[in-house]
Amino acid sequence: MTKQGLVEAIALQNSYLCVGLDTDITKLPAHLPATAQGVVAFNKAIIDATKAYCVSYKINTAFYESMGVAGWQAMEETLAYIPSTHFTIADAKRGDIGNTSSHYAKTFFETLAFDAITVAPYMGEDSIRPFLEYEHKTTIVLGLTSNKGADNFQQTFVTPLDENLSLVPHLMFPNHPRKLYEQVLETVSSWGTPDNLMFVIGATQAAELENVRRIIPNHFLLVPGVGFQGGSLADVTHYGANRELGLLVNVSRAILYASGEENFAEEAAAIAQQYQVEMAPYIAANQQKYA
Amino acid sequence: MTKQGLVEAIALQNSYLCVGLDTDITKLPAHLPATAQGVVAFNKAIIDATKAYCVSYKINTAFYESMGVAGWQAMEETLAYIPSTHFTIADAKRGDIGNTSSHYAKTFFETLAFDAITVAPYMGEDSIRPFLEYEHKTTIVLGLTSNKGADNFQQTFVTPLDENLSLVPHLMFPNHPRKLYEQVLETVSSWGTPDNLMFVIGATQAAELENVRRIIPNHFLLVPGVGFQGGSLADVTHYGANRELGLLVNVSRAILYASGEENFAEEAAAIAQQYQVEMAPYIAANQQKYA
Repeated sequence: MTKQGLVEAIALQNSYLCVGLDTDITKLPAHLPATAQGVVAFNKAIIDATKAYCVSYKINTAFYESMGVAGWQAMEETLAYIPSTHFTIADAKRGDIGNTSSHYAKTFFETLAFDAITVAPYMGEDSIRPFLEYEHKTTIVLGLTSNKGADNFQQTFVTPLDENLSLVPHLMFPNHPRKLYEQVLETVSSWGTPDNLMFVIGATQAAELENVRRIIPNHFLLVPGVGFQGGSLADVTHYGANRELGLLVNVSRAILYASGEENFAEEAAAIAQQYQVEMAPYIAANQQKYA
Repeated sequence: MTKQGLVEAIALQNSYLCVGLDTDITKLPAHLPATAQGVVAFNKAIIDATKAYCVSYKINTAFYESMGVAGWQAMEETLAYIPSTHFTIADAKRGDIGNTSSHYAKTFFETLAFDAITVAPYMGEDSIRPFLEYEHKTTIVLGLTSNKGADNFQQTFVTPLDENLSLVPHLMFPNHPRKLYEQVLETVSSWGTPDNLMFVIGATQAAELENVRRIIPNHFLLVPGVGFQGGSLADVTHYGANRELGLLVNVSRAILYASGEENFAEEAAAIAQQYQVEMAPYIAANQQKYA
């Protein structure tokens, strides 16, 4: 599915919920075996139960890799089970020099046919280009993440250079010092288009969303951090929505582990539906705003 | 193997060469099958041929993941074949929020029992801590990479904050404006010790090595970029060596693809030996310098 397909799915489902399949083998309900096949059975039940309320599934590769070969197989089986009506994301946070990134792009866009992958920006342009070269696929670059560690480097102020490559003192633009994540958004957005590039912006950073939208008004944002991490859906939507809605809000643990009992899928469906019910009027209001 | 084991291996082998097993299924010699099992056969021959001349093997996970489940199996088999006398690195460049990074750490330190893993710093402290929690394992954080894209963000100047969290204008320290990668080295080095933390510094950045050593005099550096990417072993050693030698120089393509014929392993051995022969007197000179 392309980004355009995602826009249509949002209108059809009245939802911009992404369910994160960060399935932890140690947290499966007791009636399922604590094996990779148990994870697949769990995922299939979650997908069946939630697909009416979401438009996307995000598979967190770490939770599958930690099970080794069997885990990789479980990732394949889970991906194959997701209906083609839903946008699939490999939450892999890859990024390496060009020829290595080409192999990662092949992994997640060909060997596994995900629609999108998350990518880390630290290594710069040639680490991201190989993903962007895939037509009809989407590359989702880390902008401002939802974790505490985002403060270490993403929130660091950077110093621009003038046309002679001299440092411009911040005294010259005291009202708008710039942070690293802002430079990442600005620079990376010039390498692709709103059709093949999205950004991760954590829901716990809602205060920064207005600012994000000044830099990248047209890109979709993948927003983790609602639910367990405490981000507010209302705030994220208020500050982050654009003409296309432009938000994909991910919830993982709050849905997966809504119940640890045999009724886990029903409880997951109930939580996913709650999000969908909250989202529907926001979508309607947004359509009116831009009508 | 711990970092201390690596120091001893360097003295024993008279080498600080790491052979990068970035084995590309499309570049195997014609007499080997273009399958994951062909990759394993190739790797085993390369390991047998080069182990006398190197102290470490680095497995680039992208090249295995792109083959899917069979590739993950090939990675396991290759790792199992590396003798315990050699330091093993998963070149995986992972990094995510804390509970996800814990799963990556489990993947590469338990499910696969690598000695070390490469990690990206963009997501900050809680994305790196889970790796550092493993005793006797080594976390290798990206500092300044060997690719062109390193200029995009790693070389960006950052602006420090004073004790009131106000921006300090660069005018106040015109002789030493600071770059993002320098801040990464300084900040990340405070989270671990030279015994459980190393940094990636590209050989193509030899001019910056003196500067790197001002910030982190005691850490080992994993240095890619010698060989195919054009970095100089002499320069890297001159500017980067410390009391423990402190360098692990990785060569991948120049060794793996020294010949595309049936004699590929012999030719790989010859190139690896050339590096070892060049390294031995540098090690001797360094021992004298610090005697």
